Amino acid sequence: MKLGTIKNGTRDGQLVVVKRDNSQYTPATDIAPTMQAALDAWDDVAPQLEALAAKLESGEVSGTPVDVDQFHSPLPRAYEWIDGSAYINHIVLVRKARDAEPPATLETDPLVYQGGSGVFLAPTEDIPLPNPEWGLDFEAEVAVVLGDTPQGVKAADAEKHIKLLMVVNDNTYRNLIPAELAKNFGFFQSKPATTFAPFAITPDELGEHWQEGRVDLPLKTDYNGEFFGDPDAGPAMHFSFFQLIEHIAKTRAFTAGTILGSGTVSNEDRSRGSSCLSEKRMIEKIDTGEFKTPYMQVGDTVDIRMRDKAGQNLFGTISQKVVKG
Amino acid sequence: MKLGTIKNGTRDGQLVVVKRDNSQYTPATDIAPTMQAALDAWDDVAPQLEALAAKLESGEVSGTPVDVDQFHSPLPRAYEWIDGSAYINHIVLVRKARDAEPPATLETDPLVYQGGSGVFLAPTEDIPLPNPEWGLDFEAEVAVVLGDTPQGVKAADAEKHIKLLMVVNDNTYRNLIPAELAKNFGFFQSKPATTFAPFAITPDELGEHWQEGRVDLPLKTDYNGEFFGDPDAGPAMHFSFFQLIEHIAKTRAFTAGTILGSGTVSNEDRSRGSSCLSEKRMIEKIDTGEFKTPYMQVGDTVDIRMRDKAGQNLFGTISQKVVKG
Repeated sequence: MKLGTIKNGTRDGQLVVVKRDNSQYTPATDIAPTMQAALDAWDDVAPQLEALAAKLESGEVSGTPVDVDQFHSPLPRAYEWIDGSAYINHIVLVRKARDAEPPATLETDPLVYQGGSGVFLAPTEDIPLPNPEWGLDFEAEVAVVLGDTPQGVKAADAEKHIKLLMVVNDNTYRNLIPAELAKNFGFFQSKPATTFAPFAITPDELGEHWQEGRVDLPLKTDYNGEFFGDPDAGPAMHFSFFQLIEHIAKTRAFTAGTILGSGTVSNEDRSRGSSCLSEKRMIEKIDTGEFKTPYMQVGDTVDIRMRDKAGQNLFGTISQKVVKG
Repeated sequence: MKLGTIKNGTRDGQLVVVKRDNSQYTPATDIAPTMQAALDAWDDVAPQLEALAAKLESGEVSGTPVDVDQFHSPLPRAYEWIDGSAYINHIVLVRKARDAEPPATLETDPLVYQGGSGVFLAPTEDIPLPNPEWGLDFEAEVAVVLGDTPQGVKAADAEKHIKLLMVVNDNTYRNLIPAELAKNFGFFQSKPATTFAPFAITPDELGEHWQEGRVDLPLKTDYNGEFFGDPDAGPAMHFSFFQLIEHIAKTRAFTAGTILGSGTVSNEDRSRGSSCLSEKRMIEKIDTGEFKTPYMQVGDTVDIRMRDKAGQNLFGTISQKVVKG
């Protein structure tokens, strides 16, 4: 099924079920008022939401036309947002771009960082840019939403803790990263509010494209209205979501509604383009000796979406414009 | 006023008002069901809670005796938990302990890390230790709970965003830190679930001990029933909470209920002891050439509390025992 959150003036919005073709939605108020409330009681709530989704699909329940500007992030705020970096090609390129070495344990020990999760941007919300010198970049990713996940869970048992999938724009201030990482405490100021695509879907919606904890479909990014990249999110994901869950759960448990991201989707095949400006800049540097593409400035736009083989836009589209912040 | 959260079988517990002497509490159910709900509507709710607190104090409302084991963390889960490291003496000692240099910007640019906030330990909950080799340490700190805080707020305007104060045990696996920080993405596995003292108080409860965004009182830690340290949390806090708020808000906004910690309280005066094992170990190394005190093992206990000059235990006591996890 496909779920979303409608802006209704409250902090956490209103949970709705969305038709598979993104044409209509219907409120799930009688089942669970918010996405977090649904995740908090998922085992009871999910079958009821599935039943409502079936009725919306069949026409037994008539829906309201979707206006994507009415949608908030599926979780307007979350208890945790943890982002991996599971595409090796991205790590190698981006570290080269800032003259840093990839970690020695690149292929054996996943990279994850703890992100800020209290304020997310809506899917079509402007990205405020207080200072153009900070080097604003987009990063297109996929993510899973976890149910309650105990400490110590292993990759082989991780799948049952994945309740929903989402698409992410992990906004980043590239020029704030070097000084911040030099302090050794990880990212903070270099990660402003993150954006999520309007619809969250259950893994079964992917069918055969849900492959051992990987989403085997291209994630397409347009920048200023032109093709920027459509790397496949599947095989190039070195650590699967199952492996990332084992990694994060080594020393603690997670509450329902925890979001776990894949890291920026990246393929070695250059014809697939990139999912962030930093990679493109590094490729320019390698090829020509200099960075050419600037980071985002006021007026620039980014669109991110994932279609299945039939062309269906699975998560709806992140569609954002940079404005003076 | 003093607030707490009673365990009632739900994820977020029940908000209660607590008498100043910690003897009694009364539910605030008719005002706000949970601490997060109160923080979400603080301007409306706080005066009602203050009125109830006054009635409990005067005896007009009769309370239930406090059993601290019934109390959860004031926020059993939070949307963000951001921890600073504002005591320079702690940074210098702990980095020496792991042969790392303090950052060049030690005194001009605050250190903060984004912690996990989805699952906290209750004030008297056992600390599970799955592997004694991970090097479990306690870290006694103070923290503030923020209301809605906009991006770009400056230190001079920060005070109004501080709604509550808390006391923290920032549990840490010291032996997982070096490999994790070498990957350059900050702490993750090295920070298991954090513990908070049972009561959260409004800054006015500190009276003259609330000094320009610092808590000017000793924070006392006992380890295995013996004095371990009582460093003053005030003047040695190099960056005040106001400055830490300016730092974290540089590039994004925060939702109500965001927790911001001071970092491990530490004084240069050695007679004041320490607030974590790592500091004590480093002092042993400096004095004798070797580490002597081991990290926490199953059966070890830690107690953390802050008393005012009249001896009143302001936040109640964190009282934890390590058990096999």
